[in-house]
Amino acid sequence: MHSWFEPQSLVLIGVSRKSGVGAYNNLEMLERYGYRGRIYVVHPKVDEILGHRTFPVIAALPEVPEMAVISVGRERVLSVFDECAQFGIKRVVVISQGFADADERGKELQMQLVTMARNHGVRVLGPNTMGILNAFTRFNTGFVDIAQDPDPPPLTLVAQSGVFQVGFESFSRRLGKAIDVGNAADLDFAEVLDYLEHDAQTEIIVLHMEGVRGGRAFLETAARVARYKPIIVLKTGRSTAGARAALSHTGSLVGEDVVVDAAFTRAGLIRVRNMIEMRAVCQAFLHYHSMAGPNLGVITATGACGIMTADACEDYGLELAPFPEAIRDGLENPHIAWHRLNNPVDVWPLGMVSGSFTNVFKNAARGLLHDDRVDALLGIVPALASPLHADLDLVAMMRDIQTANPRQKPIALWLYADGIDQQARALANEPDVACFASIDEAVMGLAALYRYRRFVEQAKSQPAPFVSLSPKPGAAAAVPKDGVLVGEAALDVLRHYNIPGVPGEMAMDAGAAAVIADRLHYPVVLKIVSLQWLHKSDLGGVCLNIKNGEELRTAFNELLSHFRRQTPSGELQGILVQKQVSGIEVLMGIKRDPQLGPVVVVGTGGIYTEVFRDVARCLAPIAAFDAREMLQALHIYPILLGTRGQKGVDLDALANMLLGLSQLAVDCPQIGELDLNPVMASHEGCWCVDARMVLAQA
Amino acid sequence: MHSWFEPQSLVLIGVSRKSGVGAYNNLEMLERYGYRGRIYVVHPKVDEILGHRTFPVIAALPEVPEMAVISVGRERVLSVFDECAQFGIKRVVVISQGFADADERGKELQMQLVTMARNHGVRVLGPNTMGILNAFTRFNTGFVDIAQDPDPPPLTLVAQSGVFQVGFESFSRRLGKAIDVGNAADLDFAEVLDYLEHDAQTEIIVLHMEGVRGGRAFLETAARVARYKPIIVLKTGRSTAGARAALSHTGSLVGEDVVVDAAFTRAGLIRVRNMIEMRAVCQAFLHYHSMAGPNLGVITATGACGIMTADACEDYGLELAPFPEAIRDGLENPHIAWHRLNNPVDVWPLGMVSGSFTNVFKNAARGLLHDDRVDALLGIVPALASPLHADLDLVAMMRDIQTANPRQKPIALWLYADGIDQQARALANEPDVACFASIDEAVMGLAALYRYRRFVEQAKSQPAPFVSLSPKPGAAAAVPKDGVLVGEAALDVLRHYNIPGVPGEMAMDAGAAAVIADRLHYPVVLKIVSLQWLHKSDLGGVCLNIKNGEELRTAFNELLSHFRRQTPSGELQGILVQKQVSGIEVLMGIKRDPQLGPVVVVGTGGIYTEVFRDVARCLAPIAAFDAREMLQALHIYPILLGTRGQKGVDLDALANMLLGLSQLAVDCPQIGELDLNPVMASHEGCWCVDARMVLAQA
Repeated sequence: MHSWFEPQSLVLIGVSRKSGVGAYNNLEMLERYGYRGRIYVVHPKVDEILGHRTFPVIAALPEVPEMAVISVGRERVLSVFDECAQFGIKRVVVISQGFADADERGKELQMQLVTMARNHGVRVLGPNTMGILNAFTRFNTGFVDIAQDPDPPPLTLVAQSGVFQVGFESFSRRLGKAIDVGNAADLDFAEVLDYLEHDAQTEIIVLHMEGVRGGRAFLETAARVARYKPIIVLKTGRSTAGARAALSHTGSLVGEDVVVDAAFTRAGLIRVRNMIEMRAVCQAFLHYHSMAGPNLGVITATGACGIMTADACEDYGLELAPFPEAIRDGLENPHIAWHRLNNPVDVWPLGMVSGSFTNVFKNAARGLLHDDRVDALLGIVPALASPLHADLDLVAMMRDIQTANPRQKPIALWLYADGIDQQARALANEPDVACFASIDEAVMGLAALYRYRRFVEQAKSQPAPFVSLSPKPGAAAAVPKDGVLVGEAALDVLRHYNIPGVPGEMAMDAGAAAVIADRLHYPVVLKIVSLQWLHKSDLGGVCLNIKNGEELRTAFNELLSHFRRQTPSGELQGILVQKQVSGIEVLMGIKRDPQLGPVVVVGTGGIYTEVFRDVARCLAPIAAFDAREMLQALHIYPILLGTRGQKGVDLDALANMLLGLSQLAVDCPQIGELDLNPVMASHEGCWCVDARMVLAQA
Repeated sequence: MHSWFEPQSLVLIGVSRKSGVGAYNNLEMLERYGYRGRIYVVHPKVDEILGHRTFPVIAALPEVPEMAVISVGRERVLSVFDECAQFGIKRVVVISQGFADADERGKELQMQLVTMARNHGVRVLGPNTMGILNAFTRFNTGFVDIAQDPDPPPLTLVAQSGVFQVGFESFSRRLGKAIDVGNAADLDFAEVLDYLEHDAQTEIIVLHMEGVRGGRAFLETAARVARYKPIIVLKTGRSTAGARAALSHTGSLVGEDVVVDAAFTRAGLIRVRNMIEMRAVCQAFLHYHSMAGPNLGVITATGACGIMTADACEDYGLELAPFPEAIRDGLENPHIAWHRLNNPVDVWPLGMVSGSFTNVFKNAARGLLHDDRVDALLGIVPALASPLHADLDLVAMMRDIQTANPRQKPIALWLYADGIDQQARALANEPDVACFASIDEAVMGLAALYRYRRFVEQAKSQPAPFVSLSPKPGAAAAVPKDGVLVGEAALDVLRHYNIPGVPGEMAMDAGAAAVIADRLHYPVVLKIVSLQWLHKSDLGGVCLNIKNGEELRTAFNELLSHFRRQTPSGELQGILVQKQVSGIEVLMGIKRDPQLGPVVVVGTGGIYTEVFRDVARCLAPIAAFDAREMLQALHIYPILLGTRGQKGVDLDALANMLLGLSQLAVDCPQIGELDLNPVMASHEGCWCVDARMVLAQA
């Protein structure tokens, strides 16, 4: 991977003969960006471009360059690529569009490109890419004139679009390195992450994905790297998840994006929802080391913004630190004894009375930073352009405050009024202070910083996600390769995986039924079992809520004579005596994600399933830790624990059922979908009442 | 109100002797802002400030000014105010802090101020206010140097803080007029709204509230005005709502902020959640007339941002318009026949091949704007600072596109790359194009525009909200003034309001019970009624699920002998034969909001109440329209309608019960809280099983 980011030599094929305004000439851009390696240009028709003597064919080059950058029309890409490969070039960037990003012909061309690359042992970046940018080595394959960062930050971006390089200000704010994997026909996220893991110039990783490319391999690598380098991910196409609502029931709940979300969370990735959050979070990671706890100290020149900060804290998961009483004396002013000191600290009245906003702000900041219960500071400061307000030297103020910040707690600013740009520019070179575009963005950024810190700490005592689990065939051998299993047939499979169906036995007469019922404990249910009575409920073949032996006898005989009357020639297999189970209705199942494989699902069952969509998911196989986390993530978890004097349900039994599903998913890759709905959960135990398994060739 | 915004003369009391940098001198600011009325300055110690001869006392003024602006220390405010009043001044702005915003003494001073004002027929703005800003007449009472907008927009801000004037760029983007009501001791939101309703310079109203000041009066005025002038509201302090979680059950669900939210929605106010949304929405209303439907056409220079736009549309409630097939031929380019045209329209490949991004963008824009199914346009455009990309003249491009936009559909832009500021500045004077700070903000703004348009249209056929309803005493007369009513006592009150309890009658013997049960239809429930058996369930005094006459007889006699055995001297009032009701558990009730009064509540009942918090609310009294809307707003509405082959519940019965609660709330203002939990709702009817009414002197 190293040579992708720092080639000593490269050849460009497809360079425009035009240059200057509107030409999008990547040779011109490469030179402007300051590339210092050896550049070769291949062009069949002209002798010179921008002062570079061109070569008519690749074979004419005086050396084998470390990289080729191809931007010819799609129909010429394969032959140019072949020339490169024949000549011994090992890395090829295919900027050209019109491959899997376009039509069927494009997909075909891309497949041929990949085959050709594999055969020659050549690696490909793209197609449909802007390529690579490296501000450290001044290397940039793109066709847009991007200013080189003279002091590159340790932030590396891996995206599927060039817009994150061209418009980096709006996304990651700054760029040290960037790679656009484009269609990712060959080089993909997992491999790049693998490299970045040990790249000393990369301390922050930012991803843009349009689908979880690389599936499990990506997740495993990302989960490993995320434990010591923050990975911020903008995964777009969230809304298509909705459109792909799967056909059947569990499917409709486990839309693709919610699975991605669960997997990212488990892997410790910092998912951002949109560009606003991306920018805020990148800004926080670019400026700050860490935020040790959730408690924010706030200093504001206006009470109204203190309240807005409190709202934002609740929205994004931070808390307002308690006001440090120790600093009260140093801040109070006898001329306005009525002024109330809290966190947020409203310094405006104090500044007006004392004549120095700066001094009051500094005192408050030092006091807050000194307090152990304050994990970060947000300052809300008017930045007024008027010469009448020119007495605010924010840079000096911030430097002074930083001397009282030995633990490097994050200090964020939100500036308002007409001098924002001017003040923000002045502060831009202060590495440890960030000016955010709104209070909300400041809190979003800090909250992500804190969440990541918490993840890193908790991860130490958690098992690694996406555990491997060996198949235990045997029981699985009996599961058909395709078709649909329902009712008893599905329950039979589940029983082998510690997922009990409702206890019950068949009886042929009322006496035997009574013995069974005594064993099961009343109340019980009776059900006619006959191939002619598949829809037994509709036919009146079910009797519920039988409370004692007398009722059982009556009911048994009534059912029997009802059956004989309705279907005189019907063949009765028996009458099923089943425990009448009650409890909380829980839904469980397996769903297969097209990119990530099997997913174990648990949620609120019964009639509320679809309206509340209270579902937790985890990629199979899962560990016991995951099973517990899934149950705890449910809205109904307090009910499962027991509320209002009700006993809690057998959570261990539920967790074991989830582990059983996980093993089943591993053993039977042909399961496309499995719904257990409902599972009845009570303090006496948990039983699967009904199940439906959709099988398809894996 | 007019004179508040355009006084011809005013007197300043409390002007600082200092001026210049850091002085915050409001006389200096008033003059810099360009005020052209007559200014008087009262100062006890100096003869002249900033070239103005001062007067030692107000009585020495040569005329009675239209307004006084007081910024002395809080202890001197009352005496200065009294002087003003004595002199005949009718409008006083009290800038000074330290009143209800501070301590008990401050509250007391504020009450005295209000009393004094009422006695003299003087109106007060504040205390704790920045006062008034009017860019049209160049009038500004604040102590911060704010630049006057030479072309004031028709946007008026009413806030409870000066930060919205000082930092308007971050909130409403621009200001025509602004008023800070501060502590709103006298002049309050409703009165200002009342004035703005007919103010020709006000087409957009923006509010910042820290609580719904003025309660019903505010809501009624706002609801009236909102039908023809958009009212954008940032109501902060959302998070304190959580802290105020009420003691009892319905209380915990009807936190203050959710009530506000329901009331604002019903009034047609455009609530924004934070400053990001406020800025985006104000920008949309400042630039655009209306958005007729939800369908967005998107032109983008990058496919990645098209996907982000699709995500944002789903997040904020817009849709992507279908691609207008009629424009396909005009856009396709034979050199890249593989290029797929959709909405979002990715124009980059077309621009690269044709050599003119501008022409392709203009073609696409004209085509989209011409299509009836496109209600607004979003353009995603690189704004590159490099001289190599200087061929993009966005202003010319936009003007050209506007000529093809006779219906004035909104055209929004999101720019990226290092030339954003430069291009945005150039576009700032184009009244009909707005550059948003992110794709999400563009979509937020347009979505608010569309929602408001839809509200205005729907409001035509809706009854006005917050209907008035006369009390119908009678039944209400029997309700005690305080205490708590539970069980039958509460159900008795409810029956008078068309809220039926579960049907049932008392029987003294099994024969009578059987007659009653036949009338009620099986299954039935039997319950011992005795003053000695208040906790009848715990004592075994209840028998459920009795299915026929035989079971009834057995159960009746068993209960009777059980009662005699357990309490031989107990006095039996009878055995209650009650219909065993089943169905969907629904929660209903009344909650009293401290600012807005009684609120009717409906939601998911039973064990899921607290975990899903599926609740709809409406200020009482409600109309039949509101009752239906409330039911439709519930997550469980599809279940109430009937799903999975289940019959729907009697929605009319539920709606009538809500109307009954509404009447009850009007009749009995002493009801602090009323919970009906559960109401059992089925297709046969809806019955209240249990109720709890907390009464307190109104």
